[in-house]
Parts: sequence; structure tokens; C-alpha cells
Amino acid sequence: MTRLRIAQVGPVATALPPAGSGSVELVTWLLTEGLVRRGHDVTLFATGDSTTSAKLAACYPHGYWHDTTMWPWELYEMLNLAAAVERAADFDVIHFQAAYYPLSLGFARLCPVPLLQTLHHSPSTDEVRLWSRYPEAPFVAISNEQARLLSGLNVVDTVLHGIDTDSFTFREHPDDYVLFLGRFTDGKGVLQAIDIARRVGIRIVLAAPEDEYYQTKIAPLVDGTAVEYAGEVGHDDKVTLIGGARAMLYPVQTGEPFGLVLAEAMACGTPVAALDRGAVREVVEDGVTGIVFDSEDAMAAGLPSVFALDRRRVRDRSVARFGAMRMVDEYVAVYERLVAEGVPRAPVPAGARP
Amino acid sequence: MTRLRIAQVGPVATALPPAGSGSVELVTWLLTEGLVRRGHDVTLFATGDSTTSAKLAACYPHGYWHDTTMWPWELYEMLNLAAAVERAADFDVIHFQAAYYPLSLGFARLCPVPLLQTLHHSPSTDEVRLWSRYPEAPFVAISNEQARLLSGLNVVDTVLHGIDTDSFTFREHPDDYVLFLGRFTDGKGVLQAIDIARRVGIRIVLAAPEDEYYQTKIAPLVDGTAVEYAGEVGHDDKVTLIGGARAMLYPVQTGEPFGLVLAEAMACGTPVAALDRGAVREVVEDGVTGIVFDSEDAMAAGLPSVFALDRRRVRDRSVARFGAMRMVDEYVAVYERLVAEGVPRAPVPAGARP
Repeated sequence: MTRLRIAQVGPVATALPPAGSGSVELVTWLLTEGLVRRGHDVTLFATGDSTTSAKLAACYPHGYWHDTTMWPWELYEMLNLAAAVERAADFDVIHFQAAYYPLSLGFARLCPVPLLQTLHHSPSTDEVRLWSRYPEAPFVAISNEQARLLSGLNVVDTVLHGIDTDSFTFREHPDDYVLFLGRFTDGKGVLQAIDIARRVGIRIVLAAPEDEYYQTKIAPLVDGTAVEYAGEVGHDDKVTLIGGARAMLYPVQTGEPFGLVLAEAMACGTPVAALDRGAVREVVEDGVTGIVFDSEDAMAAGLPSVFALDRRRVRDRSVARFGAMRMVDEYVAVYERLVAEGVPRAPVPAGARP
Repeated sequence: MTRLRIAQVGPVATALPPAGSGSVELVTWLLTEGLVRRGHDVTLFATGDSTTSAKLAACYPHGYWHDTTMWPWELYEMLNLAAAVERAADFDVIHFQAAYYPLSLGFARLCPVPLLQTLHHSPSTDEVRLWSRYPEAPFVAISNEQARLLSGLNVVDTVLHGIDTDSFTFREHPDDYVLFLGRFTDGKGVLQAIDIARRVGIRIVLAAPEDEYYQTKIAPLVDGTAVEYAGEVGHDDKVTLIGGARAMLYPVQTGEPFGLVLAEAMACGTPVAALDRGAVREVVEDGVTGIVFDSEDAMAAGLPSVFALDRRRVRDRSVARFGAMRMVDEYVAVYERLVAEGVPRAPVPAGARP
């Protein structure tokens, strides 16, 4: 194995790993830990209050989520990435994970080593049109669904996210409720989840941060029996809540590029009932780790089939597909390929001399 | 004279020169025109619908003020600057003018030629603390007041803005009103201006874009006689309005780094009555081109003395101090110095080997 010198550039909104929610932070941190475990020489560009087995390069003592004087946040992210690019001679590859998206393009033709961007949202066609000014800049997609949206850009690979499957305890015998876990938004489909649970006649537990959406649209539906609100939960409570659920309901309304919470549910052995949107079919193995439905009606009708899935098998498939080291090894393969190929060449502008 | 190869990087919010308001756009455009007039080889990075005597390098056909799909705007500004830095071999110096502030720092240690930033706002101490990660990156301040706020950074010079004094017609005999010209905000002091005019018993004309502040706070005070609203005015109407005013009232409440409208008033021969805030004393020659007051009471009491100032002398001093070519020549001197000194060196980090 070649020992790679890798700069991993995380977001600087909060510490890595994040104390609360923060999927980009969590994935970046897990990847960093795994790269160190595989023997690579990794430098993590993150806030000073981060915890890592890699070398920590901290521009700031803490993140801008915790300090209103750190504004505009975009400049903090930019200078964190710039700090890595300035030290390009120390690295074989630089991997940028943060928003805003995709800051790395501005450095693409100035950085003497490959600069890779993982994108964590679903880009609009307007965004991709701008980004295509840099058709050679390498992206990793987090699903084929996202790769499709990045058409015209240099998507070097698709790497599904990994999770720390060890920290999600398997539970064979759940309690008698279904779970909604996520943010309270129209896009996440929380109202649909509540409706489906009611129609099926099973209790639903909701776990998400309390916000205005909760106050106006959800709280009136919470009765403590049929619909229960558990607040925002930390990791341990999350694992307990997931493990106790007969299924996780995921009636997502908008196309999302991944669904980390689905992988987490499966790791506890809890099957998912999901709507067929975005990357859902890439995360859920239909009929094995969950069932993918075309409509809320179909989900309500098919929920008993979800409950009937083999929870041990759900767990095993999640470990096999979403174990952090699978993600780590796939990224290493991407890095090795980029390093072998060298910095991608910008296309020669039309009309320029050969 | 050395012929310099200069990249002038303007904002990409709208065309240069701007059709409506846009002081950063106007100053950048004037500077560019003047540099060409002085015989330099200038490339202007701006929107495709800009008009310039320089070579135009346009990443985008039009600006993001006119196109909601161009979002987030910060990335458009960043990639416009990146386009100039990528072509650094073609330039002796790159001069960045746009917000957000100051994007240039991210490129400071990656750009092989000097990269100069003119700042167009008053930075907070929190901003300057972040920016001081790049203590060698060259800034031009637009007033000594702003330079003071940039303490700890590499402020290579202070260059007051210039205006196209030829386009502001001198008028010796004004009508019988005073003028407020600017945006309707608490900071600009429009309510104070109205109050002062009323106390003095002179008609006041207000010229600024109609907005919510106007609707809620100003419109009830407009009676068409003592207080008149002229709307947002184009250049020709602006010159007519200014020339007809006995004085411009500028009871600014917050410290601003410059006051382009003051120089414009003076160029028409119209003296200004200004509060002593921010850079006002650097723009107004107290007792010559206007009077600087400590309070609204003093301004009301002293307005007759402002009216009595010699309008011909006001005009002459404005032409001498704020003519565009004075600004151009001062910037050329800065460029020549930066080119002679080479790219400023980053400080050696504490603990690094010598």
C-alpha cells in the first residue's frame, strides 16, 4: 500500500465529531478516522475543539454555529480551505467536504495537487451550469441519483456514505411503535408519517429539534399516546428509539442525495418504509432492509410487510453496505486514482492557440 | 512610464458602469477607464453587458442582481476573481474591488503576482480579527478613517475615491431648497435631515429609491411643499437636483468609510452640511466646501453659513481633490510599488524552522 498524505477539509461550523446533529461533520470525521486506521498520513482541517486521530490543523478555536462574531461564515470556510491549499506541497490530495458549494472550484486551477469535492446536497441545474466552468474539477457523488444531477461535471466516482455500525446496537424485538427521525420540514414528510401511522393504527414517535414548524404544524397533533414527541435526541437515545421501533417511516417528499438516517435505522435492525424519491432505492434494498413505496397509500397498506422483514438480516446488510471502512476504502481508491493521474487539465478555451 | 498589465476585478452584480446606483461599480469603472487613458494594459473582469475601454473578460453575460438563478452570489464573485488569478501570468498586478469581503485573502498566498484589495465598507473588529490571518495581504483604504479600522493589516495606502467631475455641471445660482440624496435608512439620517430643514424653514427635497422604510417612516412626512419626494433619480436628474440645492444635508448617523455623494454635491458647486462621523472630515473641507457639525442642533443653527459658502470655490476644490485622474494616478503609484516589491511574504509561523 502507498501511504498517502491526505488533507481532509471539514466544515468549520462546529466541532468534529459533532455534539448534536451534523451529517457532513459526522461523515467527514468517520472518513478521517478510517483513513488513519488504514495507515495514511492524514491532516484534518477543522475547528480547534475537534477530536481526531489525524493531525489537526485548526484555523479557528471553535465553529461559527457557536459564535455570532464569526460572520460571514462563507469566508471562514473559504480561508479554512485556503489554509490547506496553501500547504499543498505537504499533501498528495486535498479533499473538501464543506458548504458553501463548491468553494473548491475557485482553487481548482491554482492547487498543484488534486482537489476533490464531495457534495452533500442535490444541486440545481442553475448551480451545475455555473460549476461547469470547471468541467475537469473532480467531484465524488454520494449516490447515483446525485451523480445524475452533476451531469457535465467530472464525477470520478460514487461513494455511498458510511456510518459507525458498531455504535448502533442491534435489537431483535422492538416495541410497538413506528419512528420518524429527522428535521420537521415539508420535504421530510413528517405530516405524511403521522397520517400513515394513524391510518394503520400504530403509535408514532417523532424525534427532531423543536422549531417553528413543530410549534405551528406538529404540536397540535401530539397527544402523547398515538403521536408522541421525543424532542431532539443524542446518540444513545437515538439508538434506543430506533431499536425500539417496528419500522422507521421515511415518506420523504423531495429528492435527497442520500439518507443517513436510513442506514442508521437498518444498523439497529429496524426496517424502513420509504417513499421512492431521490436516492432512496440506492440506500434501501427493497424487500430486504425495507420496502420502497410509490405513494403514502401504498405505504399505509404495506406497513405490515415492512414489520415482517427479518431484523437480523436488515442489520447484516447495513453493516455490509454502510460500514465506515467500506466508505474509507472506496475513497482511498479514488485518491490513488487521482494521484496517479495528476491534477486534471483544464480544457483549452475555444479559439486558444494549441 | 512603465506600462503595467493590470487586472481590474469588479463586482459581477450588474454591468459596469451601473445603469442605476452602485458606487463600487462606478468607482471601479472610472478607475479602469482612467488606467486605459494613462496607457496601461488593462483587463476588466466584469459582466458581459459591461462597457469599457479595457479588454473585457466576462465570466457571465449579466449580473446576479438581474438573474435569480445566479445563486449563491458569493460563488459568482469568487469564480470571477479566480478567473483573474488563474491568468496571473498575464498580469503584473490584480486589483479586486467586489464584496463579499475580502474574498481576495483566500487567494493571497496562491497568486504569483500582487493581489490588491480595495475595501468598500467599514469592517468590524471581528472581521479584522479574521482577516489578520493574512497580515501581509495588501489593502488600499478609501479613507484614513477606514485605514484606522484596518489596523494590524497591510494597508499600503489610502486612496480617496474619484468621480467624473466633468459630468457634474457647476451651477452658481441655486433654487431655494436643500437636498437629501442617498438611501432611506436610519444610518443615513433622513429623518434628521427633514427635521433640520423644518426648523430652518427651508424646503427639503428627498431623492432615493422607494422602499419599506420610505412607506412607513418618510411618506407620512411628505407634503409636496415643505417636504418633497423626487423618487430615485438617474444621473442627469441627479445633477439638476444637486445644482439647484442651496446645500446638501448629510446628517449621517453611522461612521461611513467615504461619502461619494458629498464629492458629487461639491462638484456641482453645492456645499454640504454634514455631521462629524466616519470619514466626513476627510471628504469635506470644513469651512470651504461645506461645514462639519457636531450635532443636529448645530447644523440647524449653522445652515445659513453653509449657504454663504462660495460655490465656485466649492466646485474648484472638488475638481482638484476628487477628479478621477487623481485617484487613477494614486492607484498607479500603489501598483508600481507593489510590483517593485513583489508578492508580499507571509510571516513565518511561530515555531517553524528558519
